[in-house]
Amino acid sequence: MTVDNTALLTDQYELTMVSAALRHPMAHRPCVFEVFARRLPDGRRYGVVAGTGRLLEELARFRFGEDELAVVSRFLDEDTVRWLAEYRFSGDIDGYREGELYFPGSPILTVRTTFAEGVLLETLVLSILNHDSAIASAAARMVSASAGRPIIEMGSRRTHERAAVSSARAAYLAGVAATSNLEAARTYGVPSAGTAAHAFTLGFTGPDGPDEKAAFAAQVEALGVGTTLLVDTYDITQGVRNAIEVAGTGLGAVRIDSGDLGVLARQVREQLDSLGAPDTKIVVSGDLDEYAIASLRAEPVDTYGVGTSLVTGSGAPTAGMIYKLVEVDGMPVAKRASHKESKGGAKRAVRAARPSGTIVEEILYRSVDEPPSVDGLSLRPLQIPLVANGEVVGALPTLEDGRTHLADALVSLPWEGLGLSHGDPAVPTRYVLG
Amino acid sequence: MTVDNTALLTDQYELTMVSAALRHPMAHRPCVFEVFARRLPDGRRYGVVAGTGRLLEELARFRFGEDELAVVSRFLDEDTVRWLAEYRFSGDIDGYREGELYFPGSPILTVRTTFAEGVLLETLVLSILNHDSAIASAAARMVSASAGRPIIEMGSRRTHERAAVSSARAAYLAGVAATSNLEAARTYGVPSAGTAAHAFTLGFTGPDGPDEKAAFAAQVEALGVGTTLLVDTYDITQGVRNAIEVAGTGLGAVRIDSGDLGVLARQVREQLDSLGAPDTKIVVSGDLDEYAIASLRAEPVDTYGVGTSLVTGSGAPTAGMIYKLVEVDGMPVAKRASHKESKGGAKRAVRAARPSGTIVEEILYRSVDEPPSVDGLSLRPLQIPLVANGEVVGALPTLEDGRTHLADALVSLPWEGLGLSHGDPAVPTRYVLG
Repeated sequence: MTVDNTALLTDQYELTMVSAALRHPMAHRPCVFEVFARRLPDGRRYGVVAGTGRLLEELARFRFGEDELAVVSRFLDEDTVRWLAEYRFSGDIDGYREGELYFPGSPILTVRTTFAEGVLLETLVLSILNHDSAIASAAARMVSASAGRPIIEMGSRRTHERAAVSSARAAYLAGVAATSNLEAARTYGVPSAGTAAHAFTLGFTGPDGPDEKAAFAAQVEALGVGTTLLVDTYDITQGVRNAIEVAGTGLGAVRIDSGDLGVLARQVREQLDSLGAPDTKIVVSGDLDEYAIASLRAEPVDTYGVGTSLVTGSGAPTAGMIYKLVEVDGMPVAKRASHKESKGGAKRAVRAARPSGTIVEEILYRSVDEPPSVDGLSLRPLQIPLVANGEVVGALPTLEDGRTHLADALVSLPWEGLGLSHGDPAVPTRYVLG
Repeated sequence: MTVDNTALLTDQYELTMVSAALRHPMAHRPCVFEVFARRLPDGRRYGVVAGTGRLLEELARFRFGEDELAVVSRFLDEDTVRWLAEYRFSGDIDGYREGELYFPGSPILTVRTTFAEGVLLETLVLSILNHDSAIASAAARMVSASAGRPIIEMGSRRTHERAAVSSARAAYLAGVAATSNLEAARTYGVPSAGTAAHAFTLGFTGPDGPDEKAAFAAQVEALGVGTTLLVDTYDITQGVRNAIEVAGTGLGAVRIDSGDLGVLARQVREQLDSLGAPDTKIVVSGDLDEYAIASLRAEPVDTYGVGTSLVTGSGAPTAGMIYKLVEVDGMPVAKRASHKESKGGAKRAVRAARPSGTIVEEILYRSVDEPPSVDGLSLRPLQIPLVANGEVVGALPTLEDGRTHLADALVSLPWEGLGLSHGDPAVPTRYVLG
């Protein structure tokens, strides 16, 4: 049973900390919490912020109703339970917009409220941002590698059934053209697409053996000649011949899902051309990631279908963001452990760019200070208001806005920042903390 | 908005294939679909089946209501939409129980029904089994490495907020003692646990600086001396001193979340003992995986807190299971592409064990044949009925049953099968397909 309420999508200790805090004035001290990543996943040049839109929706459903209170009553005192019953986030949240690039230290989200109100949100905020940003960051690399050819996200079966929906959304934000996931089409309006599976062709096997033509004919009958026929169930060359024989030279596309995709794409392109079907497109799929996509750049591929690597973040399934208390009553605070140092104090962020538009660095400064200025560079503020006094700010950027924003932001990276090879972040983060 | 209905947690092509099939008798041919993994994740010795219980729940909610039909009407013909409106799975499902070990080729789930009914379930089945089995398989290795010391799963913030709930369930199945995730406690009855975060201690910072003792006192006041105090916000040695000074020598535990955990655990153990608190336990956390857990075996650690690596499958975030049509009208079928061959025909599975209980091999045979016999070995059938004529079979094993079953099954592995090092599957899979 999936429960719509989001209040229990959290760690028990967030609630016991509230319980301990509520006996003291500390619970109501004004605090600032910041979400940031200490580093990017190994060798990545940039990250992509995603999930903010989902977070704002789930925040509105972060309420302790009777059922939720019954669960937390097992380990909490009555005063805390009463406080939770009335819980409504009443603070302010600023953050990077969806589709914004981020770098190590970027203050992706800033939550200003009391200690008790803010600490409660840690787990939910991080779950959403860490997941969605990991997917969007991987997807953006694949989109760059595809050099303008469309990518269809088809990884639902390789991830949790609800994560699949959010993955499709994050991939679309990152520039993927469409998803196979229908819940993402319904909930977020992501364009949906699909081809056919080997099971469909195998299902037409008769007493006399396979009957690929019968399968193709049935698909064309139902979906029209614009459909995509899967030609590698038996023999690809025969499959392509059967496809054109059945659908005619107006066939939309053929899909190849196994083998050496580069070699096969060339061979199938030649065959399609020689059969008089130069407009029939070629869709390839099968364990593609950003490197495989890039390696097919010179081949006659029209569309990529990407699954596993996309929904698992291509080696980085979580973005590593953390939610840190950085300010209490206006005083900067920070943990002092050796290798996990962070910079206390609420920060604001600007990104510096040359007149050409190419970005040079990200500058973080104390939110109480004036923004710095840098000779010859323009500075763009990165945080926008998302929630004010507990209410979501109206007319926030949409998913489409984020998609456009990211496409533009990627153009602003120094050229090596778009490389797939491992390296340092595309631009440095500079702290001006006085 | 999370929709309780699961019918759209699928790929568009499952529905267009149904649409194309429904114009032909093929849609209603009796078919057998099998779920299996071609291989285990790189170097793993065994996999753990998880998610079956969740799947059966979600299957009951796989129904096309008005809202779902409106979405699919965008790309489907009226006949198909009418058929979907009436859709109820009416077939049979057998499968490995939750907590069963699996190996390459193991027929983890067998779906017997018409083509159209069976193809529709592919995406949902795989999403659930691939996710949950990936988590349980990683968690089982961590539990083995912990050699009897309890592990608390605390990775919710590192994965999708709904995947977090299922991860906690899968981890518990695999032998993890407790979870920090409250929704998993509510939905699945997984024991919940928690400590405290650095933010709590930092929150007591005053004009005169940090006040760790005030934080500890507040926590003990609210949660009792049995609580776990986080001692590494500032200086660990001082933190331990403060903890015992505030809570007394009856303090439940201290947690160390950073630094060289082995060295620190030893140091803190000595300090606690010298302070007269030999019963105060030590909880360690911070980027632990099965290898780090194993490396701490000789150290005075009482409990492990594991996050990221657990909920991301410790390098294998998806189990790689596939859902294949293997039989149509009693005829074996299989794709013929070079490197993706599979064995057609419905299969049954037995696991062969020596009299000592140690397993030797997994034998797959055609479901129409008699089970094989092997001299001197006992053979245990692995598949149990889960759904008959569309109805979930009563009195299925519970989550607790699965947990016990797995603990017993791990004991049956050849000794090298429990090793963490990379290698071949613990036992071979033998096909007796006549």
